[in-house]
Amino acid sequence: MILIFLFMVSSCDTAKDKPEGESPRTVTLNAEYYNVAFLIMDGVYNTELTAPFDIFHHTRFRDNIRAMNVFTVAKTSKPVTTFEGIRLIPDLSYLEDTLPRIDILVVPSAEHHLNSDLEDRQMLNFVRQISTSAEFIISHCDGAFVLAEAGVLEGKESTTFPADIELYKKRYPDLIVHDSVLFVHDGRFITSAGGAKSFEASLYLVEHLYGKKVADEIAEGMVINWDLQEISYVRVDQKQERN
Amino acid sequence: MILIFLFMVSSCDTAKDKPEGESPRTVTLNAEYYNVAFLIMDGVYNTELTAPFDIFHHTRFRDNIRAMNVFTVAKTSKPVTTFEGIRLIPDLSYLEDTLPRIDILVVPSAEHHLNSDLEDRQMLNFVRQISTSAEFIISHCDGAFVLAEAGVLEGKESTTFPADIELYKKRYPDLIVHDSVLFVHDGRFITSAGGAKSFEASLYLVEHLYGKKVADEIAEGMVINWDLQEISYVRVDQKQERN
Repeated sequence: MILIFLFMVSSCDTAKDKPEGESPRTVTLNAEYYNVAFLIMDGVYNTELTAPFDIFHHTRFRDNIRAMNVFTVAKTSKPVTTFEGIRLIPDLSYLEDTLPRIDILVVPSAEHHLNSDLEDRQMLNFVRQISTSAEFIISHCDGAFVLAEAGVLEGKESTTFPADIELYKKRYPDLIVHDSVLFVHDGRFITSAGGAKSFEASLYLVEHLYGKKVADEIAEGMVINWDLQEISYVRVDQKQERN
Repeated sequence: MILIFLFMVSSCDTAKDKPEGESPRTVTLNAEYYNVAFLIMDGVYNTELTAPFDIFHHTRFRDNIRAMNVFTVAKTSKPVTTFEGIRLIPDLSYLEDTLPRIDILVVPSAEHHLNSDLEDRQMLNFVRQISTSAEFIISHCDGAFVLAEAGVLEGKESTTFPADIELYKKRYPDLIVHDSVLFVHDGRFITSAGGAKSFEASLYLVEHLYGKKVADEIAEGMVINWDLQEISYVRVDQKQERN
């Protein structure tokens, strides 16, 4: 309990650190920030959108780092309805708007990532296009199917939602797939098992980019007892596997 | 790890259980459901809205229970921007719409719950009005300040965000306030410490209404290792304190 309450104090502090007048909606080309685009569509899961969104947004309240500017991108500017039924207004449309530089692309899982979404050529083209230049491309849960279908995981090692691993292997037989890990980091790609554990893959990238102190502070702000050493993941470029 | 992955499988199953064509947006007067209104306003925190929203929404995928119909209510029909910057379209406006029967009212914390929101007479009147008839009134984090300011916690025991407990006691000296617990259940009121632990107060109500099996299934679907016996909370009507 003690830990939990220390975390919550940090959470409150985090909120109150918000710079006056700052609008998290600013989609900036300013190199001061990493521009982080969350690809949303009808059926996106609340927690797999908000968990990484919150972790990355809270980098704004840490000093002396290149923080993250988080925003949503959808096919059109029309509202998107999450799986649980919350209606969101996309910040940008990849068909209608001139997009800023996207440094990090996040693909949260959505209800139809195993079927109709994989036939959406315009969405897959957007993912393919951004993946050529983004510094990191991250999927949660079945979002890996979108990356695989777009062809951007060729030659990469990855993972997806545990219950869908066999379907993933069968549909994409040339991929190197890891099971029973929370996430796989292979070069510019991080694929996460997803669920409420989507926080972990996001905190991993925060620790990778900013160091353990910043990751610890943000984890505490989100009431998460974070210790990378306790997590099962694969980091391919270091040929490191933790199970 | 094994537990985590069992949980995730449940999560995936939960999603795939979604009845074809069902719209979670239906704001129904059908007694088949508990109508659960989430009071949102600018600055509402993503996780404190989506954590209880997801837990309650997932009751739809459990058999033979009076499930929950979750929806958002704001002052007007205009979009609301969360603290982290996601723009939401409220389902209903308490000033503009004829509201359905509200069985459960949830007040997630928002950025200005310690200052300007406490001067919003229309919002406080809405909370006061719904609290006269709702079966349960739930706050997370600083949402307790809204309930206290509305005067509905008179004679009730409650808690709030740990870092704000002293301020809460000072502003509302007549209230019986508990510290160092995740939540307090006093009759129709559940006040939660909030943060990412907002899941726990929500799961507590699910277990209270539907029993341990349903709470366990929903917790697993959200990748939470749920055991009420391990949680620090106060249930006043049973004079029960667990620390």
